[in-house]
Amino acid sequence: MYNIGVDLGGTNIVAAVVDEKYGILGKSKTPTATPRGADEIFDDIARVCREAMDIAGVGLSDISSLGMGTPGTVNGDGIIEFANNLGFNNVPARQMLKDRVGDIPIFIENDANCAALGEAYAGCGNGSDNFVAVTLGTGVGSGVIINGKIVNGVNFAGGEFGHMVIMIDGAPCTCGRKGCWEAYASATALICQTKEAMREYPDSVMHEIVKQEGKVNGKTAFDAMRKGDIAGIKVVNNYIKYVACGLINIVNALQPEMICVGGGICNEGDTLLKPLNRYVMAERYSIHSKIQTKIVKAQLGNDAGIIGAALLGSIK
Amino acid sequence: MYNIGVDLGGTNIVAAVVDEKYGILGKSKTPTATPRGADEIFDDIARVCREAMDIAGVGLSDISSLGMGTPGTVNGDGIIEFANNLGFNNVPARQMLKDRVGDIPIFIENDANCAALGEAYAGCGNGSDNFVAVTLGTGVGSGVIINGKIVNGVNFAGGEFGHMVIMIDGAPCTCGRKGCWEAYASATALICQTKEAMREYPDSVMHEIVKQEGKVNGKTAFDAMRKGDIAGIKVVNNYIKYVACGLINIVNALQPEMICVGGGICNEGDTLLKPLNRYVMAERYSIHSKIQTKIVKAQLGNDAGIIGAALLGSIK
Repeated sequence: MYNIGVDLGGTNIVAAVVDEKYGILGKSKTPTATPRGADEIFDDIARVCREAMDIAGVGLSDISSLGMGTPGTVNGDGIIEFANNLGFNNVPARQMLKDRVGDIPIFIENDANCAALGEAYAGCGNGSDNFVAVTLGTGVGSGVIINGKIVNGVNFAGGEFGHMVIMIDGAPCTCGRKGCWEAYASATALICQTKEAMREYPDSVMHEIVKQEGKVNGKTAFDAMRKGDIAGIKVVNNYIKYVACGLINIVNALQPEMICVGGGICNEGDTLLKPLNRYVMAERYSIHSKIQTKIVKAQLGNDAGIIGAALLGSIK
Repeated sequence: MYNIGVDLGGTNIVAAVVDEKYGILGKSKTPTATPRGADEIFDDIARVCREAMDIAGVGLSDISSLGMGTPGTVNGDGIIEFANNLGFNNVPARQMLKDRVGDIPIFIENDANCAALGEAYAGCGNGSDNFVAVTLGTGVGSGVIINGKIVNGVNFAGGEFGHMVIMIDGAPCTCGRKGCWEAYASATALICQTKEAMREYPDSVMHEIVKQEGKVNGKTAFDAMRKGDIAGIKVVNNYIKYVACGLINIVNALQPEMICVGGGICNEGDTLLKPLNRYVMAERYSIHSKIQTKIVKAQLGNDAGIIGAALLGSIK
């Protein structure tokens, strides 16, 4: 038997047929094309599910369950209560999928939580029961697994470590608070920090890099650092300190087996991971413990969310 | 059948016989009298357990299990790996209790976790499954319950939200980090903040209050605020903002059913709890959710740890 995993994103809808060893047998994709009505979007979700089954060469009778990850808050009845970037407000996702795909068990969960589940079971976590996944992207997403289960709290909005203040009265965050981890450790924040340093250092090599690449991105400061640029070194060091601060907070709060760090910035590999680990080792509260939380790079990339969604039926 | 709960503290050892409805039938207490050897301390623990049984009028055959809360880190074998203020290093607590009290099931756990368990089941939590207890005392202690179980992480050092940085490069904390919540929201921190304001405001009524009371304590600024003193108002407002910051971080991370706040400062009651709730309501990430984390005052005081310890056998 197989499971279908769907990743409903702000940009694309991806569906895949996943086997019991977390292998992807068939995958299909279509643009989400927001803004448009939920009915149209769900018609397309059902279509890519059928396409993925065709590619995999399986039928609905081979499918044990369908799981879908979505931005926003999903309640226990499979209703997407609120998803800002899809324009969804109380969309009965489970029922809409049942009506369109067929009468199989259907599970809906927040996308960051699905990605965490995917990495914990099928990715770097290797079956880890106590696991946190952090994604450094446009924002800072996080998903928390404790005793093998997603922690989504009393209102299905849990796991938002990105909106933990690390600097009281600090930089404004999109959530309305000031000084959230996201406002310091997201790729967006890194780009702001890079631009600020460029204004402060008109002679920095970053100006040249940006001329060549067309715009400032999450790599600009890292590239400048590799060329020995002082402004680049300063930006990268500060950024790593911000990322580490939040990771150490998570370690002290939950002492998970592993925290995996994903998102585009992680392509920097050891340049990011090694100093992060040094910070965590030096500052964690559990300095005397023999066993320590591992900080590792995410392995599955965009597939984490799809595989995690496919797993929802077997985990929940 | 009954359970014995023991609270091994830096100052006192307290043991109690607890019934199935969380009632305390007999209680005994003796000074911990540190520094002294673990053997002597455990002789005294066994003695107060026997005294508590005598007072309750029960014998060892009436006891299902013995649970003990201790400062520091306790591993899965019932060994206290490290407890700074007891001078303990790899003390085989479970075995030492078995040798002295008798061959009954014995459970050892960190004291803040026991207190959380006590409040969650027998106190303000009223059986809450997803629960965080925060104690504003000398430090900021916390215990986390998820799906009815204590979260103590991969190395039994979890649940330390007090050592979550809320101000990067901020006030130094006893743990070695800078800017921990504990360094802003503990009673110790409040006293520091009060003293600082007194230096800044030589005309503040706080100088008079301190003359009468003998020293600055956690009540000084609150008492001054009630007299309309500007310095007092400033200290209290800032302190409440610091406490709220950490509480909102916990809400965003875990969205528990309830966070209970305990410790001496909570005797201020609604003066503390009402503005705390206002901050949390305004800043939590889950602003659109119908169900929200409740922020409440701890109910059981020092008994929380004893009742929680007694519960360990039935929960674990």
